[in-house]
Amino acid sequence: MSAPDVVRFTPRADQLCWTFGGVAPVQWIRPGQVLELWTEDCYAGKVHSPDDLVSRVCQFPFLNPQTGPFYVEGAAPGDTLALHFVSIEPSRDYGASTTVPFFGALTSTHTTAALHEALPEAVWIYDLDRAGRTVTFHARESDVSVLMPLDPMHGTVGVAPAAFEVRSALVPDTYGGNMDTPEMRAGVTAYFGVNVEGALFSLGDGHARQGEGESCGTAVEVAMDTVLIVELVRGATTPWPRIESDDAVMSVGSARPLEDAYRVAQLDLVQLVSQTQGLSVLDAYQLVSQGGESPIANVCNPAYSIVSKIGKRYLPERDGIYRNVHAELREKASVYRAERGETSTRR
Amino acid sequence: MSAPDVVRFTPRADQLCWTFGGVAPVQWIRPGQVLELWTEDCYAGKVHSPDDLVSRVCQFPFLNPQTGPFYVEGAAPGDTLALHFVSIEPSRDYGASTTVPFFGALTSTHTTAALHEALPEAVWIYDLDRAGRTVTFHARESDVSVLMPLDPMHGTVGVAPAAFEVRSALVPDTYGGNMDTPEMRAGVTAYFGVNVEGALFSLGDGHARQGEGESCGTAVEVAMDTVLIVELVRGATTPWPRIESDDAVMSVGSARPLEDAYRVAQLDLVQLVSQTQGLSVLDAYQLVSQGGESPIANVCNPAYSIVSKIGKRYLPERDGIYRNVHAELREKASVYRAERGETSTRR
Amino acid sequence: MSAPDVVRFTPRADQLCWTFGGVAPVQWIRPGQVLELWTEDCYAGKVHSPDDLVSRVCQFPFLNPQTGPFYVEGAAPGDTLALHFVSIEPSRDYGASTTVPFFGALTSTHTTAALHEALPEAVWIYDLDRAGRTVTFHARESDVSVLMPLDPMHGTVGVAPAAFEVRSALVPDTYGGNMDTPEMRAGVTAYFGVNVEGALFSLGDGHARQGEGESCGTAVEVAMDTVLIVELVRGATTPWPRIESDDAVMSVGSARPLEDAYRVAQLDLVQLVSQTQGLSVLDAYQLVSQGGESPIANVCNPAYSIVSKIGKRYLPERDGIYRNVHAELREKASVYRAERGETSTRR
Amino acid sequence: MSAPDVVRFTPRADQLCWTFGGVAPVQWIRPGQVLELWTEDCYAGKVHSPDDLVSRVCQFPFLNPQTGPFYVEGAAPGDTLALHFVSIEPSRDYGASTTVPFFGALTSTHTTAALHEALPEAVWIYDLDRAGRTVTFHARESDVSVLMPLDPMHGTVGVAPAAFEVRSALVPDTYGGNMDTPEMRAGVTAYFGVNVEGALFSLGDGHARQGEGESCGTAVEVAMDTVLIVELVRGATTPWPRIESDDAVMSVGSARPLEDAYRVAQLDLVQLVSQTQGLSVLDAYQLVSQGGESPIANVCNPAYSIVSKIGKRYLPERDGIYRNVHAELREKASVYRAERGETSTRR
Repeated sequence: MSAPDVVRFTPRADQLCWTFGGVAPVQWIRPGQVLELWTEDCYAGKVHSPDDLVSRVCQFPFLNPQTGPFYVEGAAPGDTLALHFVSIEPSRDYGASTTVPFFGALTSTHTTAALHEALPEAVWIYDLDRAGRTVTFHARESDVSVLMPLDPMHGTVGVAPAAFEVRSALVPDTYGGNMDTPEMRAGVTAYFGVNVEGALFSLGDGHARQGEGESCGTAVEVAMDTVLIVELVRGATTPWPRIESDDAVMSVGSARPLEDAYRVAQLDLVQLVSQTQGLSVLDAYQLVSQGGESPIANVCNPAYSIVSKIGKRYLPERDGIYRNVHAELREKASVYRAERGETSTRR
Repeated sequence: MSAPDVVRFTPRADQLCWTFGGVAPVQWIRPGQVLELWTEDCYAGKVHSPDDLVSRVCQFPFLNPQTGPFYVEGAAPGDTLALHFVSIEPSRDYGASTTVPFFGALTSTHTTAALHEALPEAVWIYDLDRAGRTVTFHARESDVSVLMPLDPMHGTVGVAPAAFEVRSALVPDTYGGNMDTPEMRAGVTAYFGVNVEGALFSLGDGHARQGEGESCGTAVEVAMDTVLIVELVRGATTPWPRIESDDAVMSVGSARPLEDAYRVAQLDLVQLVSQTQGLSVLDAYQLVSQGGESPIANVCNPAYSIVSKIGKRYLPERDGIYRNVHAELREKASVYRAERGETSTRR
Repeated sequence: MSAPDVVRFTPRADQLCWTFGGVAPVQWIRPGQVLELWTEDCYAGKVHSPDDLVSRVCQFPFLNPQTGPFYVEGAAPGDTLALHFVSIEPSRDYGASTTVPFFGALTSTHTTAALHEALPEAVWIYDLDRAGRTVTFHARESDVSVLMPLDPMHGTVGVAPAAFEVRSALVPDTYGGNMDTPEMRAGVTAYFGVNVEGALFSLGDGHARQGEGESCGTAVEVAMDTVLIVELVRGATTPWPRIESDDAVMSVGSARPLEDAYRVAQLDLVQLVSQTQGLSVLDAYQLVSQGGESPIANVCNPAYSIVSKIGKRYLPERDGIYRNVHAELREKASVYRAERGETSTRR
Repeated sequence: MSAPDVVRFTPRADQLCWTFGGVAPVQWIRPGQVLELWTEDCYAGKVHSPDDLVSRVCQFPFLNPQTGPFYVEGAAPGDTLALHFVSIEPSRDYGASTTVPFFGALTSTHTTAALHEALPEAVWIYDLDRAGRTVTFHARESDVSVLMPLDPMHGTVGVAPAAFEVRSALVPDTYGGNMDTPEMRAGVTAYFGVNVEGALFSLGDGHARQGEGESCGTAVEVAMDTVLIVELVRGATTPWPRIESDDAVMSVGSARPLEDAYRVAQLDLVQLVSQTQGLSVLDAYQLVSQGGESPIANVCNPAYSIVSKIGKRYLPERDGIYRNVHAELREKASVYRAERGETSTRR
């Protein structure tokens, strides 16, 4: 296997994009290329201290900036874009989480509308120890500090939507977007159905770590240095985003109410298992019912997201999806890392 | 009052638009002008007979074509666009309703996902008697026919969205769009917050009549000849669409789950009543709780819509919203109609 | 037609009941008998003035007392109980509406849980003019008063549940209960599937009037003098409560989220129309989609309720449900009223 | 520590109970006693082979039989009942999962009502290897078999409800009931608020294993031999069920829509963390947002259930809830097991 071709892209401030769709590509990529990129945090880099309240320093709709879109040569509707995450590493030594008025799971919101005043707005600055792989929480109103594992991920990854739509980067839907699942970490391959020529993918919203549901509305938000390998699976449709790790196959559903996100993810996974594992649909439904996990991604965005997941150890045909492209990309990632003297994927 | 200035616009087939936002204006309008226009039906005119199944004759995303967008001179973010419907009249003598696979309230859908096969697809052709003001249903599987009142309305009216978004014309949201409320009939004034320069409004999706909820997914769909007067209320914000008739004031909420559509509409109406009627918020909440109606608009679109409505007879300050622009527009409509020898608004 | 047999029942304070199911009958009734009864208001009569905050004067679970249960002789599972409301008249000249902590549509609640403090608690006392048929709202924080029509109804009517369940009188479900629909007014016949021997129906929660959705959580609550005629339709099943007026046929669905209440009511009405009107299910779906109304009942109780309704003028077979028992009961009510020198049903 | 006092109870067929509340106790228990019991499976033991379709062999409402209720001496409203699961072991060498008409996450149901026919009904018989700790799935329509870990749990555990209610054993709510969370396994302590004298707890619905969400509606259902220690925490309230393992603290929310189950569980956990760990509510919200997990329990029952969970490693005061009763019960369980020559809790 020859050394992968590497493209590097760091957006200027005026190149950040705020939507999926509706933006001209910042860079052309060929399938098989490695892309080294940088993403700004969801606050557009404006929250540095406990005084930087979002409502004061950020200006809607300039939230959740994305790096991209990237035009993938040859990608066309009917194909699937595969993005393999080689590494996702915080590019700063602190992260910030915040409460934002009328945003989050435990507050009334603009659609779960009520007569309450907004909850108090606040900022928490976390210490990130990239060598030690920890994230440290400091309570604001007492002396408590808590060390948690660093588990970097991208909250937002997606392609341009179908049907001429342009969507805010705060939204998740069939094209991906702001799904906010902790499963989008280094070592996985994410799959998206291509809706427009060139696929036009972008990503951002790095999280040093995140709980399931992102209940306060934000994670430990941080800019990221990310390496991914871009691949194309021609002639393969992907109705909702899917994720593959070495150990599991996943589908991501985004909808409201939350049970619909569950239904979407569950149905997509059942159909994927049925189509690739030699099982009838009812048998696949049964297998996923007993062997599946369903980690909640977000319960705060305009659509909520849930992942349905099944361990490959329960699948008769291991690695049988998308023509084993994940295994190939894993291999390619190893070559790339070996060239740089790294020994293993960080997770 | 001088005779209103009249603009006429009939789109060519290649001028129909499929989104709110993302499209160049087809026509400039000055506030105060009368606009006579024509809208195609939601099937893009392709369903004429029981054999014209939607999945066969229509091609996604070329559904629900809109006439527009119209650029309103002087409209800017922070203003409110007022559209007064002088008349909405079917331009054909038949209408068509259909079932569409995985669309509607009593079927599993792409988000209320399930393992069921799609329900049977069918077309019902209704006779429209424009002089007699009736719509006739003919059962497909028995000899039954039922006469119902003609009650023409636009399912879809809106402006370009905020936050750089472009939305499919099948969706309702803060900017209006595919709300599908029977309240959008001749004689009312609809209000929309302006998000972009020129407002860029469009409309379509005429219904000869519709039940509350549009449960099968479509109404009695028909092309329309519509006359409206365009006005601008400068410096007035409108967070969600509002509708004013001679008798009532209404807010339209669109969200999922359906209770959130109710909450949005109810909260907006409570706040509007409080702000314009000399009532505290709690008193307005109480008054709307006992005197309000909440007609369901749609329970089938990507967001569901509910109207909250209060009779002006229950409001201390009658006609006190938006500086009485509805009364002015009503007057202007009378002048327009009188010039054409018509005596009253048809409803 | 002979004069109906009349039974009168006024509960003592210690006879009020707080559940559907789980209570011994207070009275035996024979089908065909007229029942004159009195119901206490939902506060158990403890709210008389603006100072009587619910959290202070009422004690959970002693809320929403019911009059009953009544044992209907001969009623057995598989039958339908028909309750015809001859009259529903306030027995006091004032009514009370309140806000209650964490209860209502525009507040966070115990299940739509959030970190907000409760909204302010308040009481509004309404004047009821029974002769003039009006209800007067007085704002608490300004001088505004608003006259609205008196429109008396019962928020809560139902039978003992199936499956050995006993349910709080605050809950609506398949057996009826706290549906809070303004359609439950004098002149209608309500139908309930019988789940246990004797049916064991009870009722209460009188409202002098109520808006659609009961958004603040309570209506204009008042004790009622109510007259109803009890009838049995043997061998007829009724999966969810139904209501018949002279003009319309209705189904009541109760569930969460609100779209499920809509789906339940809509499906039951479609099936009822199909079964009784010589229409296929798809044709009935179509007819109800275009001709139906869906007034919201409540968006505040443990299950939300929606009514689906179709005018008899749109039904090929008028009065064709439940063997025309509504017409018979209407007639019987006339005889009863004539004997008392009354000329028409008050509504 | 002296040897615990042991009570054994195996219900006769006519002693099984079908509700929480409404049933006389089968046995008195003193706090501190060990209870060895047996529970029948959710089919009342009637499904043995692929031919035993639920709609044929089971009769509603005789589903999900519970063992109990047990009267805990001294338990009174305002106390918390602690049930420590020493062991949960299948008492048969096979388990059965099924599809049931209009029940499950990927089908229309009686409340998510639609016009679809029911999905096909089927039975899957699993082999249980209690020594090898495996569960084997056999596909019905192909030759595939899949080995999964045995992970026994109780789907249903609870106490008598408040407010005089009696609830079907198929329902989960504040009192526990049919939550169907895989977290209810051996080694944990479950906490329930006491609503009536004696608490009146019961349990059943053993699962050899279950996926998150129980999407097909049933798990690998099996009768269980279960040992638990009963304890009482006096004067401690518990608004929703909580679970404590050696590693984590959890709250269980049950509601519809699914986001409300999430909100309930999340709010209860945030409040518990705030009250016991020296953190303000906002700081606890933040900590749980970044460190919490939210495993879905069921998306098929009359209320859906979600668990919110935080690792004790993230809590400043480890084991600080309910006065360390979990540690005590763990110890007591060790003594009990040691007496029987067992070395460790099986999980």
